[in-house]
Amino acid sequence: MTTSARGYTGGMWTFGRIIDRYATDGYGPVVGTLQTIELAAASGLQGLDLNYPFDPGVEVADVKKALAEHSLAAVCVTPVIYDRRFRSGSFTSADPDLRRQAIELGHEAVQVAADLDARYVKFWPGQDGYDYPFQTDYPTLRKHAIDGIGAVARAFPDVTFGIEYKLKEPRNRLFWGTATASLLAIEQMKVDNVGLVIDFGHSLFAKENPAEALSLAHGMGRLVDIEVDDNYREWDDDLTAGSLHLVETLEFLHVVRTIGWDGPLKLDLFPYREDAGEAVRESVAALRELETRAAKLDLEQLRAAQANHDAMAAQKVVRTALFS
Amino acid sequence: MTTSARGYTGGMWTFGRIIDRYATDGYGPVVGTLQTIELAAASGLQGLDLNYPFDPGVEVADVKKALAEHSLAAVCVTPVIYDRRFRSGSFTSADPDLRRQAIELGHEAVQVAADLDARYVKFWPGQDGYDYPFQTDYPTLRKHAIDGIGAVARAFPDVTFGIEYKLKEPRNRLFWGTATASLLAIEQMKVDNVGLVIDFGHSLFAKENPAEALSLAHGMGRLVDIEVDDNYREWDDDLTAGSLHLVETLEFLHVVRTIGWDGPLKLDLFPYREDAGEAVRESVAALRELETRAAKLDLEQLRAAQANHDAMAAQKVVRTALFS
Amino acid sequence: MTTSARGYTGGMWTFGRIIDRYATDGYGPVVGTLQTIELAAASGLQGLDLNYPFDPGVEVADVKKALAEHSLAAVCVTPVIYDRRFRSGSFTSADPDLRRQAIELGHEAVQVAADLDARYVKFWPGQDGYDYPFQTDYPTLRKHAIDGIGAVARAFPDVTFGIEYKLKEPRNRLFWGTATASLLAIEQMKVDNVGLVIDFGHSLFAKENPAEALSLAHGMGRLVDIEVDDNYREWDDDLTAGSLHLVETLEFLHVVRTIGWDGPLKLDLFPYREDAGEAVRESVAALRELETRAAKLDLEQLRAAQANHDAMAAQKVVRTALFS
Amino acid sequence: MTTSARGYTGGMWTFGRIIDRYATDGYGPVVGTLQTIELAAASGLQGLDLNYPFDPGVEVADVKKALAEHSLAAVCVTPVIYDRRFRSGSFTSADPDLRRQAIELGHEAVQVAADLDARYVKFWPGQDGYDYPFQTDYPTLRKHAIDGIGAVARAFPDVTFGIEYKLKEPRNRLFWGTATASLLAIEQMKVDNVGLVIDFGHSLFAKENPAEALSLAHGMGRLVDIEVDDNYREWDDDLTAGSLHLVETLEFLHVVRTIGWDGPLKLDLFPYREDAGEAVRESVAALRELETRAAKLDLEQLRAAQANHDAMAAQKVVRTALFS
Repeated sequence: MTTSARGYTGGMWTFGRIIDRYATDGYGPVVGTLQTIELAAASGLQGLDLNYPFDPGVEVADVKKALAEHSLAAVCVTPVIYDRRFRSGSFTSADPDLRRQAIELGHEAVQVAADLDARYVKFWPGQDGYDYPFQTDYPTLRKHAIDGIGAVARAFPDVTFGIEYKLKEPRNRLFWGTATASLLAIEQMKVDNVGLVIDFGHSLFAKENPAEALSLAHGMGRLVDIEVDDNYREWDDDLTAGSLHLVETLEFLHVVRTIGWDGPLKLDLFPYREDAGEAVRESVAALRELETRAAKLDLEQLRAAQANHDAMAAQKVVRTALFS
Repeated sequence: MTTSARGYTGGMWTFGRIIDRYATDGYGPVVGTLQTIELAAASGLQGLDLNYPFDPGVEVADVKKALAEHSLAAVCVTPVIYDRRFRSGSFTSADPDLRRQAIELGHEAVQVAADLDARYVKFWPGQDGYDYPFQTDYPTLRKHAIDGIGAVARAFPDVTFGIEYKLKEPRNRLFWGTATASLLAIEQMKVDNVGLVIDFGHSLFAKENPAEALSLAHGMGRLVDIEVDDNYREWDDDLTAGSLHLVETLEFLHVVRTIGWDGPLKLDLFPYREDAGEAVRESVAALRELETRAAKLDLEQLRAAQANHDAMAAQKVVRTALFS
Repeated sequence: MTTSARGYTGGMWTFGRIIDRYATDGYGPVVGTLQTIELAAASGLQGLDLNYPFDPGVEVADVKKALAEHSLAAVCVTPVIYDRRFRSGSFTSADPDLRRQAIELGHEAVQVAADLDARYVKFWPGQDGYDYPFQTDYPTLRKHAIDGIGAVARAFPDVTFGIEYKLKEPRNRLFWGTATASLLAIEQMKVDNVGLVIDFGHSLFAKENPAEALSLAHGMGRLVDIEVDDNYREWDDDLTAGSLHLVETLEFLHVVRTIGWDGPLKLDLFPYREDAGEAVRESVAALRELETRAAKLDLEQLRAAQANHDAMAAQKVVRTALFS
Repeated sequence: MTTSARGYTGGMWTFGRIIDRYATDGYGPVVGTLQTIELAAASGLQGLDLNYPFDPGVEVADVKKALAEHSLAAVCVTPVIYDRRFRSGSFTSADPDLRRQAIELGHEAVQVAADLDARYVKFWPGQDGYDYPFQTDYPTLRKHAIDGIGAVARAFPDVTFGIEYKLKEPRNRLFWGTATASLLAIEQMKVDNVGLVIDFGHSLFAKENPAEALSLAHGMGRLVDIEVDDNYREWDDDLTAGSLHLVETLEFLHVVRTIGWDGPLKLDLFPYREDAGEAVRESVAALRELETRAAKLDLEQLRAAQANHDAMAAQKVVRTALFS
């Protein structure tokens, strides 16, 4: 694969109307489901991570048609298990009826993913966790988290599921918080068709080294997808890829290569104050530059440096690839 | 003053509909301006920090009447300089027209504060800053930040203005980020009527010791108001006061006493998944317990311990006050 | 068990001479192995975590005798796999000879632990990790980390081993960094006699909730020992227990009770500028107060609150136990 | 100035024996004062930040001679106000005699600096602060911090003094913690000859943007010197410059250029496990690459982007300079 052949995909949310707790009137006008598809295509992406349900009145067939018209693939379907209904938890809600609803929405997402030829179903259980000490019984929370996703996964053994972990937000403590917390829980789930969506920024924010997390998920046969973005290491800022942490992004891309990941990379951006298309193009431009340089790393010298844990020698290899 | 006499005030936002970037349908139903006043009164608060403008159709006179009916004081008026209009900056916007609009809204807030007998006008310049390196010219940003608030303050020399600093959110880097950054900028503003609103949680998040920040603002004659809440030290979680950091809250309340602050304390809460009234009552209950214990600190022993920087002796004083 | 019956143990390092990279002449005079035992006993502790090797010239028999004279138990033996010899790694060193030496020192520690009737051997692999991106090959690092401790554990199937994880320091990235990273690696080690030493402060620093980490390790049958201390959540400050995070310490002690941990709790303190005995006594005094209050938690009300994830109701239970 | 003409200086500590609280036998053998000078010269540096006092038996004349022999400049003299003697504070010690000793050592450092033709005297008050809440009386601490350095500065109005701030370590809370905390205190000191040593890594760790801090100190006429290194934003890791945060380092170097700083940049490294000379050479190589690219930034386009706070346009300028 030449690096220029790398495709990029993105999330529908990047093109929609972003809102937060302060600008409660949103950072821009409302953008409908079909319009996000149009904008995504215009930005040059090849596929979309699709939040489901869609806008009221928009059917799966409408989305399918719009994707086709714009030559966009459905990367995955991400059921919205983090809105008002699930504000106190989806699979881990204290309310058994809501836990059931989360599972049902999971089933529905599987059907939608099939209809759209999406590669996998993504769970981002952003409300599964807690906010205060003493708020929950930890074994129960754990059981619900594992059983809930496990129930969906067992019902569809031929479907791939990817869990996207994040340390916090919107809950202060998320159950699926780090790569290893998630991998351990997935092992305990005892299913073969659940893995991780490794998000570079979430990994940085979780105080991990993203390249190490990626390598681990791959090594355990649990790597489902890869997302890229950037942040200041202490919050999920969702900045453009390659805007801050060039060396760690380069190392991440190096592992992407060495594990033989030929698929596209997905952008996870929240361009609050930027044009979404520009944010995508800036990210892709930066990633292409870095992929080109990852391809230039002298692997023999790098392996020799790593065999000795020789940080200075490794840096020389990196610097040479980056700058000459 | 007996500690039981301490009044508590709060922010209108605590009782309104909270929204974030995930639960874009909000954590609850829409709550109108006048209803937030009703809810605030029912929670037992004595006064409100009022975001301005109010809901469309709600006049200042309506708010005044509602406050009076519920025996609530207007603590301050906080112009909304952080919504969509000002998403890329208010006083520091790149657009001179928006900078002018921010100043005008400040003037308007002064008038509303006068109409409502509010003690001060609060600025929370949450969009004044930047997100990426290289995005702004720092001297220009600084000039605009200081000149903008300075212009409002100089236009109304008899009005008190309080700036509430926070390290980040919604911008990744806020100009008014820490107590000392803000005090230094206020000194450079060369006005007498601008000071700080010290928020316990913002101070923790800024890697400060809140008691030290409070002491400093008071010592410089720049303390305008005091807010309380809690968080995990790395984000503005706006948890109930006294839910996590009891020792630092106790120390904060100790300084509140020693500087002779007789006024109410303001709660800054975002009860995403909790009943707002309950969150207020829990906070007040915790603060009353802690104020009672702050009053029991053996000041002679404490002073002796502090004169020697003797942490162990100081802890004994604290433990005795807390637990016996 | 009445809470007053709880015993406390500590680490030899608390009583020794503390040094850091700035006060390279140490925070106090040199303290010999046998003197630390004397000081530990005088502080009221019941047992010691013993760093091995001891001072040159001090034999195991000497230590055994000193412990007996002072009625101190040997809690565990902690081989020093983090000094100059192992500065670039012990079990994960790039040098196979050093990896072998680490294993040999592990074997030696097992023998010393047997001689001293210590309950377990503790590994704190503080140099196993890396400092820079690109410095190491992650699969190799992982293999060495798991194989090394696994080799010692398999050689002594009847001996208990506890790994104490920490996010960073002295390496910038430690392999055994969090509870779940460590539990996952231990599962992959496929041995029954290796578990975790959960350190309250390390858990806070790893952005975990310590009570949740404790609950998880216990639930997986991997809890070997429990250490207590405190910090500002962003570094291993090793402050006295109960000095900052009272609520989370209370929750931790609550889980200590509910899992039926009858053994002593170990203090992990670095009293740089304080008298070690005083730091121990302050910690024990705070912990006794908090254990008394943990015993007062209304478990029925707490369970009801947790069954609903009702943070406000849970706080009321906590506040009542703490303050009335 | 061509970028290749930039000189680099360093700290004596980089070449000495590094020790920490775990590897108490040090990360290498003891290195004497004069040997550090030799090693510094061999690494290619042009000047040294000199910790004073020197090793017992080494006189100022010896150091002067060694520096001359190796064509090394004395950049500054840094009195050791953070060793065992001053472990509980230097200028802010609770003990008036120690406060006096700190001032006296400051006087002595002025004399040594004069003897060695050093440009300034650096204060790094790493023990001035506290560890626990309630440990100190904040106004007193503040008074001592300001009065102490102020006393030295007023005694030598023609000498330049630079304060190097850091958020924490070895104290958990340092008085001179951030750029603005320090600038505010210096303003209150009311002297003209005290400014800041801006350390890139300390600034990152303090949650600042280093370029903004540099710009501010310069703008206030308080910039004394500039240090470079890198870290993971949450501790003073003292990694090689340019190893992690390339974009922020580039922006820092851009401000170095635009403020017209022609002097050398000082490296602040702690190569625990690396050869000090290699760490210096790696840092210099990375900085030279980045300075070359800083010189290529299209200033017209950058100014246009910044005038609009246009992050995407600014990134394009940065990417172009970095990669083409």
